[in-house]
Amino acid sequence: MPQTVRIALDAMGGDHGAPVAVAGADISLERHPETEFVIIGSGSVLEPLLANRPALRAASRIVHTDVAVKMDDKPSQALRHGRWKSSMWMAIDAVKKGDADVAISAGNTGALMAMAKFHLKTMPGIDRPAIAALWPTLRGESIVLDVGATIGADAKHLVDLAVMGGAMARVLFDLERPTIGLLNIGVEEVKGLEEVRQAGLILRQTGRPDLDYLGFVEGDDIGKGTVDVVVTEGFAGNIALKTAEGTAKQLAEYLRSAMSRTLSARIGFLFARGALGAVRDKMDPRKVNGGVFLGLNGLVIKSHGGTDAEGFAAAVDLGYDMVRYKLRARIFEMLGQHAAE
Amino acid sequence: MPQTVRIALDAMGGDHGAPVAVAGADISLERHPETEFVIIGSGSVLEPLLANRPALRAASRIVHTDVAVKMDDKPSQALRHGRWKSSMWMAIDAVKKGDADVAISAGNTGALMAMAKFHLKTMPGIDRPAIAALWPTLRGESIVLDVGATIGADAKHLVDLAVMGGAMARVLFDLERPTIGLLNIGVEEVKGLEEVRQAGLILRQTGRPDLDYLGFVEGDDIGKGTVDVVVTEGFAGNIALKTAEGTAKQLAEYLRSAMSRTLSARIGFLFARGALGAVRDKMDPRKVNGGVFLGLNGLVIKSHGGTDAEGFAAAVDLGYDMVRYKLRARIFEMLGQHAAE
Repeated sequence: MPQTVRIALDAMGGDHGAPVAVAGADISLERHPETEFVIIGSGSVLEPLLANRPALRAASRIVHTDVAVKMDDKPSQALRHGRWKSSMWMAIDAVKKGDADVAISAGNTGALMAMAKFHLKTMPGIDRPAIAALWPTLRGESIVLDVGATIGADAKHLVDLAVMGGAMARVLFDLERPTIGLLNIGVEEVKGLEEVRQAGLILRQTGRPDLDYLGFVEGDDIGKGTVDVVVTEGFAGNIALKTAEGTAKQLAEYLRSAMSRTLSARIGFLFARGALGAVRDKMDPRKVNGGVFLGLNGLVIKSHGGTDAEGFAAAVDLGYDMVRYKLRARIFEMLGQHAAE
Repeated sequence: MPQTVRIALDAMGGDHGAPVAVAGADISLERHPETEFVIIGSGSVLEPLLANRPALRAASRIVHTDVAVKMDDKPSQALRHGRWKSSMWMAIDAVKKGDADVAISAGNTGALMAMAKFHLKTMPGIDRPAIAALWPTLRGESIVLDVGATIGADAKHLVDLAVMGGAMARVLFDLERPTIGLLNIGVEEVKGLEEVRQAGLILRQTGRPDLDYLGFVEGDDIGKGTVDVVVTEGFAGNIALKTAEGTAKQLAEYLRSAMSRTLSARIGFLFARGALGAVRDKMDPRKVNGGVFLGLNGLVIKSHGGTDAEGFAAAVDLGYDMVRYKLRARIFEMLGQHAAE
């Protein structure tokens, strides 16, 4: 019998709050019946939402709180007003106490990271946490990190990111030796930031058996899927992620408007609807929803704030996989090896 | 009668060399007959290319050299071996001597920037040059800078970038008061790099009559066209540019493969071909080819190395516009105003 995965949900986060979180959990539960939920939020809101979902109701425990971190709270405000009593804090606390294996929230990223860092602390040997994103590519999916947890990175932190991202790739993509690239400008050794060059030297010299370091990659290599794990500091990583999202939306908008402009385009659209739907599916940001917080003593996943039930379910699925395939143990193991070198 | 614009072409740069440069110049000349060219490269290669282009032949002077900077030369190598005698250097030298108004090269970016900086020097008041890119958006086009001239930027350099990009927007888009945004992660004042925050404070406090500073923008605002000018340092800017190019190629590839998969998709494609062509046109990187080097005592434009004649012509057109509408004078004027504040 598969091991039960216990998931703590901050049901008050995100733009749409509890309805999306509950419906998302329900979708994910169908895919993974061996899940138990701790759903945290306003009881009077949650009870009716669960009433007509008997399977989810049976798999869930509701923990009541009326306090929610707002989407525009600054991290310091959230920590001051939301500690102990907000749904976001209580989801993290469930992980801290061992009542849940992973916490999932669609609440504001800065507050969630501040609380997670404050309460769970970073792993031994890791100075700063990171957020890893799944990125759809021409070859499948890659992991890109850090996409915004911390700004700037020295060589040691970049190497830590490579190790943590590599562990995630081993777990998620079931690879023995995932390929790693350092995001840089230009592929010649001479270019780029000093700390990126340094990190490249360290990764090349240590020649780890569990990571296949391929060198520098550029922005256009991400979508190509040149490597399994793209490593960069949080400022550039966040800008790359948002720029790609913006470009995808822009092209979808061009396509939409072109397809309705002439009669023949509208006829063509009818015939090609299935194919265009498949493209839309591949570009669908909901399918790869979920930023994984790495480097903390506990698993936390950030869902996109504006997502719907399908997108939230993808974040829950991601949390499920991370627990099921023991991401944290894998990171510990790889860090240990790393420290021993 | 319109003023003649004199353009120096490095005809030995780029992946395809002289054939693309000459054909591109020919296309641009048709659009702007009041252009004169100094075409620099191997005479025995250039003469036959010009022989069957009488209009271009009449508008051109060939300057012979057999020395070319290679696409993979390091900037220091290029400076050491290519100074005085390479086609790249001689194009820049023509601008320096006043024999041409702008130099255009599809050669390697690092070498071109190193030579341009060495020979032309930075403008008074500007410490470091920048490369500005035209970016197609949902609203038209925006200018993004710096996309890779220098790594890192203090607040003063970011403000200089805003002024230079603003001058370019006034010239190219014919705007009195272009809108400016600083690229950052998250729009809250609390987030982001200290130097970006500082630059934001300076731009807000000075309240220039020629620039409309709108605040921070994120990666997805670039494609939306939220502002006319997006300001960032060269590392993040280059990664944003390459990531957007990669995403556009990725989606085009998804589309291509989806459109040939089923019979009904293939039929749909026939009907929608015109509309899809229009989308491809909008995404066509050749249409907006040309990185403008800003902050130097002379105009230099970098064409994409892998472009074709149509793309090279776009870079020549861009150079033409920059000269015609007096970009450098406009920057001087705006810098003066800036210095006086």
